[in-house]
Amino acid sequence: MTVAEILPRSGVGFQIQQGQVLRVIDPEGAQVSDLLAYNAADVREVISNGRTFDYEETIALTTGNRIWSNRSNPMLTIVEDTVGRHDFLLTPCSEATFRHFYPEQPVHRGCFGNLAVALAPYGVEPDMIPCAFNLFMNVPIASNGRLRVDSPVSGPGDYICLRAEMDLIIGLTACSAYASNGGSFKPIHYDVAEAPMPA
Amino acid sequence: MTVAEILPRSGVGFQIQQGQVLRVIDPEGAQVSDLLAYNAADVREVISNGRTFDYEETIALTTGNRIWSNRSNPMLTIVEDTVGRHDFLLTPCSEATFRHFYPEQPVHRGCFGNLAVALAPYGVEPDMIPCAFNLFMNVPIASNGRLRVDSPVSGPGDYICLRAEMDLIIGLTACSAYASNGGSFKPIHYDVAEAPMPA
Repeated sequence: MTVAEILPRSGVGFQIQQGQVLRVIDPEGAQVSDLLAYNAADVREVISNGRTFDYEETIALTTGNRIWSNRSNPMLTIVEDTVGRHDFLLTPCSEATFRHFYPEQPVHRGCFGNLAVALAPYGVEPDMIPCAFNLFMNVPIASNGRLRVDSPVSGPGDYICLRAEMDLIIGLTACSAYASNGGSFKPIHYDVAEAPMPA
Repeated sequence: MTVAEILPRSGVGFQIQQGQVLRVIDPEGAQVSDLLAYNAADVREVISNGRTFDYEETIALTTGNRIWSNRSNPMLTIVEDTVGRHDFLLTPCSEATFRHFYPEQPVHRGCFGNLAVALAPYGVEPDMIPCAFNLFMNVPIASNGRLRVDSPVSGPGDYICLRAEMDLIIGLTACSAYASNGGSFKPIHYDVAEAPMPA
């Protein structure tokens, strides 16, 4: 497929097949994209940060790491990553997080609202939205456990590629929160490549 | 109420009212207890590690911190804590985690299985079990993101007290995994106190 664009502060839902590779590109740099993945055959199976941290034995996920489901199955494998800095600790920004963190700013439905709308046609209800795998999101943790949301370290054209380990419903956004994106809202690009032919 | 005992490698489910204080005690020391909390009026609302990390701005939760729900409501407030070392990164141990981490040992249903059985009467299905708040669990994170499961630092009689911020269904275990509990399986004690009278 050609490269598709997710407009600033919006989101999309689509299906990919086992073995296909999803590439998510930060075209301008310093833009976060929240990624969700559900088992296309049963959307009650979904990515889980806790299962992933447990099996991968790290919170710093990059090439070679897998994203696991709540049912302990691998859903995605990171096969390429030009950034190496993502977040799987925090939940998608939402109306409630805008009211909490940006009381002076207009409320936005955020990634949570965008994902809920994009995934509703697949039978995903809002309460079935867990922590997203937040691509390019930069959340340093201090030695005392305190966390910060810094601007992404991704530059223009940086990308991450994830191979589907089962047929998946994907939710993907161009993130809407101020701190996560260095204060401005940019698009996200993505494409889906067929699995490489066996040698 | 008097102090109740959770037998080693088992779990319980029970209801507490808004304002009541749940005290969870490690009677012998070095024993983890996985805690889940659901809105008693609608069990689709449940504790969320991501929302909690976001609003509390830390992964090191102790006295004064709140445990937030997937709907951005505070569910529990930590009002006392003699340990100060808990985990909210990892999911409950399960048959799958036993097969993964302890292939030489008999498979156990783990905290996940114990919670699923204990919470089924309240309408909680296994897929509705998220990351638990793992009391006394000791998960250091290195500066490169790698995590380890160490023995708890809790000693005999150490405890944590959590005030309910809404009517809650609680799931609570004496954890079943080897590494989490220093290699041996001990009981957990708990009680529920009425809210203090207004002055």
